[in-house]
Amino acid sequence: MKVSELGEFGLIDLLARIAPQGGPEHRILVGIGDDAAAWRGDDSAVLATTDAMVEGVHFATGTPWWELGWKALAVNLSDIAAMGGEPRYALVNLSLPGETEVEDVAQLYRGMADLANKHRVAIVGGNITGAPVVMIAVTVIGRGLKEGLLRRSAAVPGDRIAVTGHLGSAAAGLKVLTGNLKLAPETSASLRKAHVQPEPRIPEGQVLVRQGVRAAIDISDGLIADLGHVCVASKVGASVRVNTAPIHPQVQGAFGKDALGLALTGGEDYELLFTSRPSKTRLVEKAGRASGVPVRPIGTITAARDLVLIEADGRRRETDVGGWRHW
Amino acid sequence: MKVSELGEFGLIDLLARIAPQGGPEHRILVGIGDDAAAWRGDDSAVLATTDAMVEGVHFATGTPWWELGWKALAVNLSDIAAMGGEPRYALVNLSLPGETEVEDVAQLYRGMADLANKHRVAIVGGNITGAPVVMIAVTVIGRGLKEGLLRRSAAVPGDRIAVTGHLGSAAAGLKVLTGNLKLAPETSASLRKAHVQPEPRIPEGQVLVRQGVRAAIDISDGLIADLGHVCVASKVGASVRVNTAPIHPQVQGAFGKDALGLALTGGEDYELLFTSRPSKTRLVEKAGRASGVPVRPIGTITAARDLVLIEADGRRRETDVGGWRHW
Repeated sequence: MKVSELGEFGLIDLLARIAPQGGPEHRILVGIGDDAAAWRGDDSAVLATTDAMVEGVHFATGTPWWELGWKALAVNLSDIAAMGGEPRYALVNLSLPGETEVEDVAQLYRGMADLANKHRVAIVGGNITGAPVVMIAVTVIGRGLKEGLLRRSAAVPGDRIAVTGHLGSAAAGLKVLTGNLKLAPETSASLRKAHVQPEPRIPEGQVLVRQGVRAAIDISDGLIADLGHVCVASKVGASVRVNTAPIHPQVQGAFGKDALGLALTGGEDYELLFTSRPSKTRLVEKAGRASGVPVRPIGTITAARDLVLIEADGRRRETDVGGWRHW
Repeated sequence: MKVSELGEFGLIDLLARIAPQGGPEHRILVGIGDDAAAWRGDDSAVLATTDAMVEGVHFATGTPWWELGWKALAVNLSDIAAMGGEPRYALVNLSLPGETEVEDVAQLYRGMADLANKHRVAIVGGNITGAPVVMIAVTVIGRGLKEGLLRRSAAVPGDRIAVTGHLGSAAAGLKVLTGNLKLAPETSASLRKAHVQPEPRIPEGQVLVRQGVRAAIDISDGLIADLGHVCVASKVGASVRVNTAPIHPQVQGAFGKDALGLALTGGEDYELLFTSRPSKTRLVEKAGRASGVPVRPIGTITAARDLVLIEADGRRRETDVGGWRHW
């Protein structure tokens, strides 16, 4: 059945049954089906972020719907992770052509619901409208920990710059999706998954806050571009030793000399980049080893407002803020 | 200049300067420019709603951008009004073709900012992305009054049904925009404005809550359709005397026998429909006379779960839930 046959209100009823409704900790007063959602607030910091995915821009027509749902929520949860917070509530703005299959939209919601359940996020509301292409705009509301928030603007000269996890696999996965690469099937599958099903670093962001870190961003535009955002917001510069960038081993194996570029500028890895005093960075590295998510120092925040890349042979290269552009 | 020439980050900088940043009452911790917005919460009910407008679906290409901005925010504020709450924060998800003029996007933000300033709403964040058509998805977060919330599900048999203001002018305005009507220029202008620049009934919703009203909806789909939503949510029916519907005088004058249909099913008036014990409805009518926003009783909530329209000559007609459909 197509959504135009089921109609807006029938579709809302169906999706409301798939959407996680939340538990006692969500203190929901009014859920899906009223003019607005409502829940009981508290005196913690409220966090709110919104991000959208558009057919033909962020994903190709024919992308599996479950994956679309997962990723549309994941990119928002990653923003909450980058503040060191807890995601709690999501609102979903869905724009769909009338000929979209109802089962496809249900799959999209199942992808969102699977990730939402993993992080105890309630889908409390949304909106459905007609459109010439599929667009999924998600807003996530959460709260900050009592210890504080992670901000782009809190980097200080002398801070160590570090990143969680490995980089480059999402960009490599996009090449798998769009190119005709000769890779081992398990490598292709794993890189593809890195692109379509990123894991937002929610627990890791909270570890950073609890260890006293105060400056972070999630890596969506690419390591160099996102480090640039931190530098601009904090009015500082940075020096990065490019050979310390934690290139994903599969990317290194499959892409050889191109791997570093994917790791530095590929984007969409949704790892966290953070800066803190070196003593704190060491504590976080230790916590990372305990949790299985490696933390790698890659450089230093500087007072001079340049972004300097130091190559393996010691050559210094000032760089522009690269990364993803929408137009 | 086109947005593709200015680039995403230049555009964000420009729009952040137009967006109202809020005052002390917003208790903002992190504004535009970080991974998420943050503000200090409190123990009131948090309200959240989202709504989108899509080019070619909700508005024609060529609609003045200031008006788009106003309306995209207004429809969301109206949802907060229908909960009897105070809007506080907005997040804006903008999808734009790369050839969009930067000045047009600035005008869109000015339209939003003018309405936001009127109701003390801070635009705290958003997202900009490329897309084949213009899409504006807005999320508004607010808070409920301590007296309570207005819900679709709180109508009780015996309640009087009433509406604020006049109906039909927004639908008539759409006819002005799309048709070739022979109306006096001032009538055309006034009806057109009703369609493109609705005034969300924020103060009126708060008056309802303070007077003890607990059931309401905003009229976006049309009087009959939205009354139907209340009936479904409250598991009740309704009986409406159609000749008591407050048809806008200009609509009556310009559309004659078609005016009633516009008032009953036209939609997008963004007036409030509410139900309450008759004694309370009289208090609200009195408050309405004092404030200059008339309140008109139009019928009664019934235990029988039908929607019955009573014509001027006493004929009874059961009706289907009509109104706006997206596909």
